[in-house]
Amino acid sequence: GSARMGVIYTEDRQKAFFDVDNKQELQFSSRIRIVFTASGETDTGLAFGGTIRADNAAGGNAGTAGSVFMSGAFGRLSMGDVNGAAEQIVGDLAGVGFTGLGDKSDNMFLGNGGIASIINDEFELPFFFDEDQTAIGVRPTALYVYSTGGLTFALSADNPGNDVNGVLERVLSVAVGYSVDSYSFGVGYESAKADGVSIDHVVASAGASFSGVDLKAVYGRSSDLDFKQYGLSASYSVDAIGVSAFHRVEDFGGDKTRYTGIGASYDLGGNAAVVGGLVNTKADGASGRNTADLGLTFSF
Amino acid sequence: GSARMGVIYTEDRQKAFFDVDNKQELQFSSRIRIVFTASGETDTGLAFGGTIRADNAAGGNAGTAGSVFMSGAFGRLSMGDVNGAAEQIVGDLAGVGFTGLGDKSDNMFLGNGGIASIINDEFELPFFFDEDQTAIGVRPTALYVYSTGGLTFALSADNPGNDVNGVLERVLSVAVGYSVDSYSFGVGYESAKADGVSIDHVVASAGASFSGVDLKAVYGRSSDLDFKQYGLSASYSVDAIGVSAFHRVEDFGGDKTRYTGIGASYDLGGNAAVVGGLVNTKADGASGRNTADLGLTFSF
Amino acid sequence: GSARMGVIYTEDRQKAFFDVDNKQELQFSSRIRIVFTASGETDTGLAFGGTIRADNAAGGNAGTAGSVFMSGAFGRLSMGDVNGAAEQIVGDLAGVGFTGLGDKSDNMFLGNGGIASIINDEFELPFFFDEDQTAIGVRPTALYVYSTGGLTFALSADNPGNDVNGVLERVLSVAVGYSVDSYSFGVGYESAKADGVSIDHVVASAGASFSGVDLKAVYGRSSDLDFKQYGLSASYSVDAIGVSAFHRVEDFGGDKTRYTGIGASYDLGGNAAVVGGLVNTKADGASGRNTADLGLTFSF
Repeated sequence: GSARMGVIYTEDRQKAFFDVDNKQELQFSSRIRIVFTASGETDTGLAFGGTIRADNAAGGNAGTAGSVFMSGAFGRLSMGDVNGAAEQIVGDLAGVGFTGLGDKSDNMFLGNGGIASIINDEFELPFFFDEDQTAIGVRPTALYVYSTGGLTFALSADNPGNDVNGVLERVLSVAVGYSVDSYSFGVGYESAKADGVSIDHVVASAGASFSGVDLKAVYGRSSDLDFKQYGLSASYSVDAIGVSAFHRVEDFGGDKTRYTGIGASYDLGGNAAVVGGLVNTKADGASGRNTADLGLTFSF
Repeated sequence: GSARMGVIYTEDRQKAFFDVDNKQELQFSSRIRIVFTASGETDTGLAFGGTIRADNAAGGNAGTAGSVFMSGAFGRLSMGDVNGAAEQIVGDLAGVGFTGLGDKSDNMFLGNGGIASIINDEFELPFFFDEDQTAIGVRPTALYVYSTGGLTFALSADNPGNDVNGVLERVLSVAVGYSVDSYSFGVGYESAKADGVSIDHVVASAGASFSGVDLKAVYGRSSDLDFKQYGLSASYSVDAIGVSAFHRVEDFGGDKTRYTGIGASYDLGGNAAVVGGLVNTKADGASGRNTADLGLTFSF
Repeated sequence: GSARMGVIYTEDRQKAFFDVDNKQELQFSSRIRIVFTASGETDTGLAFGGTIRADNAAGGNAGTAGSVFMSGAFGRLSMGDVNGAAEQIVGDLAGVGFTGLGDKSDNMFLGNGGIASIINDEFELPFFFDEDQTAIGVRPTALYVYSTGGLTFALSADNPGNDVNGVLERVLSVAVGYSVDSYSFGVGYESAKADGVSIDHVVASAGASFSGVDLKAVYGRSSDLDFKQYGLSASYSVDAIGVSAFHRVEDFGGDKTRYTGIGASYDLGGNAAVVGGLVNTKADGASGRNTADLGLTFSF
């Protein structure tokens, strides 16, 4: 499991949503999570198992949280709240802060419910969400991964049996990654069809690691959504100290939002650390806004 | 704990409930469950303990899920989401499929909230359910079981203190089972009183096991509800292979619904198996509908 | 973890809230709880960890249930669902019954969401609760405790960043306790500000332990709320037998409610016990009402 506690600063945060005069920019933040992992092996040597957190155990029972897998020489098949293939291979940039500060270093993907979020956010079509804002029917997502040498192939499909509204007809993804020496490359393709409209997304990454420095660049594009995303992150660690930074841009139809983050951590040993970060969010035509945090992180 | 993943086929399943032209018969299905069991012993040698799953831990705290027990020479007393006496002794037929395919091989009982479901389903009186469709007030159910030689006696009562609507005045059950050599017999009686009306249910079973074959027959009747249920199941296992089948009929006022299922499993060792099943549901005056599944099951 | 099962008697409890003629005074009650505790140590010897129950694991993820701590020579800092300083030092009276029978032996405090409950109950201002009746924004509460010799100092603050309605501007508390030989004393001060109004609360306790007897007296007062509370509890244990009693008064603007409880327990060994209690609640101008329970308690 893991735990954390600290404070979060949110610039210009109002005390109450209807009260523009009073600000309350500081909040306490803490949490504790318990993780269960289970595993076994068949008589022929296939590995199987699963994982789920205590706090979303109900989702684990429904197939919308946690995951289940079987793996062997054929590769690894998993189902549940698993990455789409593109996300599995391309992944996210390095984040900052003990809370992640909104995870603005994460890239957008169509798989595993991502298309539902995008359509919901951008076009205000809440078709894909039930009353609890849980994406309907996209999970369990199925992911198949096969690795050989430095190559990794991934293939995924969101649950084809979408419930109730059923406007999300399919989300498929295929991706391939390649690692050699200290370099890694990934490219992924995602294809969704919602309410009769096809939506594609192509995304690629390149990374390098040397002398304690990790660099990563990502570029993604969906012409169907008139959407682009690109960004860069760098992280460096020496002894107990780690620093990281990212810059990431989302462009919907020419309207850009820029996220810039810097962070640092100090390892206390025993799986405890002091971690802090600062993220600036700046949308075209709006003034930038800062959030920052500082706290302790523990893992058990 | 346990986990499973696979696919479910539901004949004529519509993509969206308002759209009769588009079908989406295939769904992914996965889940993972974590089970906690706790036990202890008093100084005088009485055993006690309980069990609860992580995904319904909140119900365990409320007494509506999981169970708590104490046992000794006097028998075993348990409370929570426990079987009524008739269900404890008579039980269900052998099921099929890695998901159970709707558990149509399960018999109906009045105890532990069953009467609430029956009345709710058949007479569209949602008296017993709160907004989350949880039966109100029937749990914790209390169950007492005493075994001596081949005889087992069981006695149960749903929670007498029903909340809010309180139309369910009592659900009591008594049952006795007898096992000799490879044969087993059970008979149970349930008595409920709801909104001033008494409802009785008598149900019996007979089973035999020989040469890897398990046979079971069940017959139940509630003249107050003008309800009958009867069925037969057979299962056979040899080496890693298991097959099973059931046929079960529910008759409400002469309107019969017939459930027929066949299934097979292949044991992979290490508590993993491949399991599949097919269930046909056929109500009087309607065409039959098939559901089927195929998947992997794991236990840890 | 822990578990319990038994029966509760509530005098004059109606079967249904709209039906004054039918009473159902007896209820079954059972529950099972699983507790997770996690801990570690940094390289410099600081201890850290946290605790959460399975049934409120979702709250643990949100910082509203369970808690996280770090401790060392500097004292102990914790965050989550932790006591305010006054509650940490002064605490509650000894309770009775296997269920606690409504925990009427507990004192009222402003910290950790208490002021929200008080205002909600007394003035029918549901500002602080969301739809699930969860106090908004008061958690995580932060608590700092430092002990030296027989002295214990405590300092706490509810989450300063209250969400949405934000009328609760601050809840701070400071308290000090002193133990010498078999005597203990505590005094706490709490200061809240809600919707522009300051509310203070001073509360003190004295306790003594001798020959198996524990005595405790508490007095608290908030002139801003025109509120007083005071009470006394005694508990005695010899061999496997324990008895306890309390009397406690809450006075809001001269309207007094008196709670009187007596209870007994018999230790079965192995962390199992038989526990029963009786509580009488008597408000000014109303007839008293009794609740009682009897059951088994287990801890694992």
